[in-house]
Amino acid sequence: MLEAIFAPQSVAVLGASPNPARLGHEVFKNIVKNGYQGQIYPIHPTATSVLDIPAYPSVLDVPDPIDLAVIVIPVDHVIEAVDECGRKGIKGLIIITAGFKEVGGEGKERERRLLETVQRYDMRMVGPNCLGVIDTISKLNATFAALMPNDGEIAFMSQSGALCTAILDWSKESGIGFSRFVSLGNKADVDEVALLRAWNDDPHSKVILAYLEGINNGPGFIAAARQVTKNTPVVAIKSGATAAGTKAVSSHTGSLTGSESAYEAAFSQSGIIRARSMEELFDCALAFAYQPPMPGNRVAIVTNAGGPGIIATDAIERSGWVKMAEFNAETIQRLQRDLPPTANVFNPVDVIGDARSDRYRVAIDAVLDDPNVDAVLVLLTPQAQSDLPETSEVIIELSAKHSKPVLTSFMGAYSLGPALELLNRNRIPNYPFPERAVTALMAMARHRDWQQQPAVEYAEFDVDRERVRQLFAEMRAADRVELGEIEAREVMQAYGMRLPQSRLARSPDEAAQIATELGFPVVMKISSPDILHKSDIGGVRVGVADAAGVRDTYELIEYRARKYSPDARVWGILVQEMVRKGRELLVGVSRDPQFGPLVAVGMGGIYVEVLRDVAFRLAPISKQEVAAQIRSIRTFPLLRGVRGEPPADLESIEEVVLRVSQLVTDFPEIVEMDINPLVVHNRGEGAIVLDARIILQA
Amino acid sequence: MLEAIFAPQSVAVLGASPNPARLGHEVFKNIVKNGYQGQIYPIHPTATSVLDIPAYPSVLDVPDPIDLAVIVIPVDHVIEAVDECGRKGIKGLIIITAGFKEVGGEGKERERRLLETVQRYDMRMVGPNCLGVIDTISKLNATFAALMPNDGEIAFMSQSGALCTAILDWSKESGIGFSRFVSLGNKADVDEVALLRAWNDDPHSKVILAYLEGINNGPGFIAAARQVTKNTPVVAIKSGATAAGTKAVSSHTGSLTGSESAYEAAFSQSGIIRARSMEELFDCALAFAYQPPMPGNRVAIVTNAGGPGIIATDAIERSGWVKMAEFNAETIQRLQRDLPPTANVFNPVDVIGDARSDRYRVAIDAVLDDPNVDAVLVLLTPQAQSDLPETSEVIIELSAKHSKPVLTSFMGAYSLGPALELLNRNRIPNYPFPERAVTALMAMARHRDWQQQPAVEYAEFDVDRERVRQLFAEMRAADRVELGEIEAREVMQAYGMRLPQSRLARSPDEAAQIATELGFPVVMKISSPDILHKSDIGGVRVGVADAAGVRDTYELIEYRARKYSPDARVWGILVQEMVRKGRELLVGVSRDPQFGPLVAVGMGGIYVEVLRDVAFRLAPISKQEVAAQIRSIRTFPLLRGVRGEPPADLESIEEVVLRVSQLVTDFPEIVEMDINPLVVHNRGEGAIVLDARIILQA
Repeated sequence: MLEAIFAPQSVAVLGASPNPARLGHEVFKNIVKNGYQGQIYPIHPTATSVLDIPAYPSVLDVPDPIDLAVIVIPVDHVIEAVDECGRKGIKGLIIITAGFKEVGGEGKERERRLLETVQRYDMRMVGPNCLGVIDTISKLNATFAALMPNDGEIAFMSQSGALCTAILDWSKESGIGFSRFVSLGNKADVDEVALLRAWNDDPHSKVILAYLEGINNGPGFIAAARQVTKNTPVVAIKSGATAAGTKAVSSHTGSLTGSESAYEAAFSQSGIIRARSMEELFDCALAFAYQPPMPGNRVAIVTNAGGPGIIATDAIERSGWVKMAEFNAETIQRLQRDLPPTANVFNPVDVIGDARSDRYRVAIDAVLDDPNVDAVLVLLTPQAQSDLPETSEVIIELSAKHSKPVLTSFMGAYSLGPALELLNRNRIPNYPFPERAVTALMAMARHRDWQQQPAVEYAEFDVDRERVRQLFAEMRAADRVELGEIEAREVMQAYGMRLPQSRLARSPDEAAQIATELGFPVVMKISSPDILHKSDIGGVRVGVADAAGVRDTYELIEYRARKYSPDARVWGILVQEMVRKGRELLVGVSRDPQFGPLVAVGMGGIYVEVLRDVAFRLAPISKQEVAAQIRSIRTFPLLRGVRGEPPADLESIEEVVLRVSQLVTDFPEIVEMDINPLVVHNRGEGAIVLDARIILQA
Repeated sequence: MLEAIFAPQSVAVLGASPNPARLGHEVFKNIVKNGYQGQIYPIHPTATSVLDIPAYPSVLDVPDPIDLAVIVIPVDHVIEAVDECGRKGIKGLIIITAGFKEVGGEGKERERRLLETVQRYDMRMVGPNCLGVIDTISKLNATFAALMPNDGEIAFMSQSGALCTAILDWSKESGIGFSRFVSLGNKADVDEVALLRAWNDDPHSKVILAYLEGINNGPGFIAAARQVTKNTPVVAIKSGATAAGTKAVSSHTGSLTGSESAYEAAFSQSGIIRARSMEELFDCALAFAYQPPMPGNRVAIVTNAGGPGIIATDAIERSGWVKMAEFNAETIQRLQRDLPPTANVFNPVDVIGDARSDRYRVAIDAVLDDPNVDAVLVLLTPQAQSDLPETSEVIIELSAKHSKPVLTSFMGAYSLGPALELLNRNRIPNYPFPERAVTALMAMARHRDWQQQPAVEYAEFDVDRERVRQLFAEMRAADRVELGEIEAREVMQAYGMRLPQSRLARSPDEAAQIATELGFPVVMKISSPDILHKSDIGGVRVGVADAAGVRDTYELIEYRARKYSPDARVWGILVQEMVRKGRELLVGVSRDPQFGPLVAVGMGGIYVEVLRDVAFRLAPISKQEVAAQIRSIRTFPLLRGVRGEPPADLESIEEVVLRVSQLVTDFPEIVEMDINPLVVHNRGEGAIVLDARIILQA
């Protein structure tokens, strides 16, 4: 997939200029000078050759077939040139030229026409308004960047072209390499979803990195990411997360930015590891690219210094994803036998400040052999006795012998040069401070956890979809967007939620009869299409305890209705089951512009209002996801039961959330919805929707 | 203070050996070769000279006075040598030799005797078991480290010697300099408190950094830190924070580690900025050392790339301490006039990818001139058109012109070398990623906030200290540690807390009389020294509503007491005011081994049990601190009032906490105490201690 872009047999550069001051010259030179082995055609209106390669005035003049066209010409000629590319049968486009959606106004329209042209010829396009594409496997550098990165196994995509140049510059110094390197630009056609699909099972990439500012197609992104993360770790930084950051995004690329909660949910539901900073992004990348997967989450530390050992131990304990390994007896014995008596043979293993590489060998080999150890972090502070390159050699050798990740934190810089170069050349990731190595281990553990999760299952409840469809059609016909209480009840019922039972009585005796059947106490409410605020006129009574009370209350409410709203139509009085007290939850839905329906669950009342203790997932929600969602709220212990209380009926909560998920997936016109409260009783006793609110798209 | 250690006129090195393989040789060479201008005396049992400097067998043989002795001799001779130093009138000691407290057993006793000797002669000592001390002002390098750091304005202390060597190695590469550099070792005498005092108002240090594993003298540390942080920022990393980390600390230096909450409270109450990682420690140090203080918290960003601008904006918004500046009209006009039309003239200012240094000049100068800007963060990604060293020059020039902090994040590495060197040489802190620059700005803003806080005031309530003293004396005499209900009430009363009113009735009529005076309803409880579990025999009734009920209840309770405990002495029946419902809080005290009494406040019940929503401060607590403490709990909105509720009586809560603070400060024998619940009524209506528990030191 996207072969024409990443591995073309031939490339034309439109705008390849003999003038070294032009961007097109730069791009052309990058393709020529970096080892690309395919055919290269400079396209220029007047030049006969560029860099000694014969030039053509148009792609249509090139006698041989062309796979990829890189376009670096003035914006006014782009669409015409793309049309020629289409006619030529070119399949891939990289459009570096700017002046499209990002400038607004006519640029937007121009981008629309560009995309139309691209699609008419069934081509695929990166850009416009981008730095270009680098592929180190085909040795294609179709960018105007000053540098060609080293070969490597990191695939990188970025919505910021400037960031690409900074990363190339940085990688050149640190020796880190890339397999693919894509500046997405305006991503009119090829976007993050297309790249995730193209890079799924890519044998050349061990990790995918993404710098994202916005996502166009949320559900597509989740689907693609879910698939690729089962094989390849994806680490992403999502920028523009805060309100001010979002403002900066808008002025920058004009991309619509989804809400923070939606992104959090999307990343968590699709196994993407979210980096909190650029540094973290690359720290994680290095571990994934260089080291084998982590078989478990138990880490051994080997150090020549106590302080850094404690720092790393703290970081591991805090991480929540990895933990300190506990060595078996054999390992302890080996370490006691082969290390000096002052060494600490428990984790963190302290080989003491005067350790040379032989002592590191003993310790690292022993802990790598231990089946209770899943990864090793080697710490080193340069001491007078340290033999640095030799210690690197030992680590390289032992790491090759075992299939567990080995990471290092050689702390310092001045005297470490050759030792660090050895480590990097031999794919041992080194971090200048131990906390950063732990962050990378954490990412590895998270990825492993995600990969081990069983395939998600979706519940499919037997619901009365047709009834809701009809109701919504009537709402639309009446130009209404907010459902009334009885309508919302109907939707809830159609989707199988439990509601308090209720029946309409038309006389005191009938009311008493209904109440006896429902069971006492009951709630009684005036039923009238003309009385909106029932409580205000005394039209609602709760806790009516017996038949006599029901008869009295019927007459009282009826009397009040006649007195205070003499013209209102009164249909009768609703007699409703009085729901026992239980734990009150909120199940809410909002619709994210990129990702669609976002379902929130939390304890109701002050917990959600004051503590904002809710967990979000994007619908459709799987059975596994809803279980994790409910367990992730801080107040979950209240549902599990504290102080000897019995647990709440968690299965019922899960079912309500899944039914809501099904409802909002079936009806995209629901833009907002709240079940508040959902009264949840003890385990086995169910949950009842006391009140619901639904708002449809205007 | 500590002049003899940091600025001695003369130094003797005990163990200075002519043999280059010995540590003493290394230390001696470091003193000789790094520019120290005072007198230097090698002390060696047999050598006549070391590095061509005449040697003496003992300090007592040196004819001239000596200020400082550096001791690198076998551990068995250290105490004797120190005694000689004392007799010689030496005032400062640096003991590098190991084999003391850190090895346990006899080492502990040896350290005790060492300290005794040091104190007998009124000397001050760094170590034992340390790397030594470096002072770049007096050019004294009294360590066995391989490197002498650059001159600089960072004072650094570390409880890990190995970390010191790593930091020296790293600083040498990055060009960062130090004023003082101390390896604390076992800190038998000179500890973090002594150094904070010595470095208070040090004209050579603009920032103090500390790597700490444990603190010996909590209150002393807080007092010293409070004083020094009013002038000089202190950034610290506290290691061994997690349980496993603490285990690693114990096996490492044997220092007692205080609880995490106590450290958090201590740092926050003394203005110390806590770094979360080694990297952050130095990122903050650089900003403090190189740049002027921040006059406010509003940051302007100037960037040549949108992506990094968004990343930095996000980081600023998330920080909670700094925010994005809003430019005044003049700045906007200037930027509009002088930047190209495609530039973004709002914050973050985007000078566009093809910006050269002139465009950076326009933008940086304009935002630095704006009174709404307190600091500037300049971002740069290397682009084809970038003129890197020139841009550095512009930043250096403009930074010198204004007295606001200017930080940079030039992203990349390969092509940045000369530009970065210029920045560092001219004291512009550069960070490879923008998030790290924002962390440094955050620290600057926190320090400013701390400096601007008014001096703390302590409340001094008029209490009956003598009554409590006597009660505790009786407890001790009776070998009891846990106070009973009546005793705890007495302590509460002596310290001025409000308790439910209660009086003992000896007849049904007297009970009715008391109840009428207290106001109905009342609580009635059997009063007997022999009946411990009053409720079990039906000896407690709540909500007794009127005089008749009180008379009936008196007789009922008395009857039950006679029936179920016929031998019990019955003093009568306690008639107690029934406290109105209110918000329930917990005020608790535990005693931290390093820092003393730690006072916790939180909403009671599930908030504290399930959500662990409590805030801690160390006693004595000031008026300002208690206000911040109460406002820092997550459930504070419940106290302020939600859903139209009136606010709780915050002043009463503060007063109770302050009275508790006074109590536990007056009586260090209180090891644990709980007021639970403290029932707090609405504003102006007070707070009542319903139940209290006090446990004394066994």
